[in-house]
Amino acid sequence: MREMRRKDKEIGTDEAIKLLTSCEYGVLSTVDNEEQPYGVPLNYAYKDNCIYFHCALTGHKINNIKDNPKVSFCVVGETKILPSEFATNYVSAIAFGVASEVQGTERYNALVWLLEKFSPEFVEEGKRHIEKKDKATKVIKIKIQHISGKKEPAK
Amino acid sequence: MREMRRKDKEIGTDEAIKLLTSCEYGVLSTVDNEEQPYGVPLNYAYKDNCIYFHCALTGHKINNIKDNPKVSFCVVGETKILPSEFATNYVSAIAFGVASEVQGTERYNALVWLLEKFSPEFVEEGKRHIEKKDKATKVIKIKIQHISGKKEPAK
Repeated sequence: MREMRRKDKEIGTDEAIKLLTSCEYGVLSTVDNEEQPYGVPLNYAYKDNCIYFHCALTGHKINNIKDNPKVSFCVVGETKILPSEFATNYVSAIAFGVASEVQGTERYNALVWLLEKFSPEFVEEGKRHIEKKDKATKVIKIKIQHISGKKEPAK
Repeated sequence: MREMRRKDKEIGTDEAIKLLTSCEYGVLSTVDNEEQPYGVPLNYAYKDNCIYFHCALTGHKINNIKDNPKVSFCVVGETKILPSEFATNYVSAIAFGVASEVQGTERYNALVWLLEKFSPEFVEEGKRHIEKKDKATKVIKIKIQHISGKKEPAK
């Protein structure tokens, strides 16, 4: 991957992963076979260098991923506009990776990781919900190949 | 553009534009010439069916846009996790369009629109800031060709 232009604003991999672990949603960027990019927000769970999300069986992002599994995933932490400085404070991370559908145990585990992240007090009910929606749900994994993060103000 | 799968969750163009007008930042999705998507957050201003942002003279997004000006731009409004429902309420809009660098009056106007949006009480100081940073700044316009929006819960 290319290096970041502003090295002074770069955060370390650990900090980028911490942000990725804590954010509620990120924007998945994919591209179709006519080279039209598509960015869409989604809830996700991070685990062991992978990002997991679920979606319907068909749709724009699934079509794009089938044609080209290369994706990027962007999360943004707290932001604060500084009107008098013509600047914004923020922290963000961008992961690059390859998306693929997962099955079996990994698929089930990923759905439980999503439950544990978003519905920690309803995990048992959630498992019944998983069963109910099982045939209408795809689970996608993004295996992260590179992650970078940026913080403003610079260190 | 392809139609949205879940028509029941679709919001109208007016509502999507309203969201685009009010959000502080969006994620710009571009693609490089090796078909690697790249999504990056940025502050922007919306005006007359166009999205304007400024950036440094060089960098990842500028390189991508030079090779392929087709982009998508995603904004997300308020989100609310509903743990017991295994769902999230949110509103989002995705614009598809073509990016190009702007010059002259349009360039200056766009920088002032950004000032008026983010630094409404410091517009005059901001104009001096624009002058100071003039040679280090590119201004990019995304001419929107299509915009769609989605709201959860469905209407």
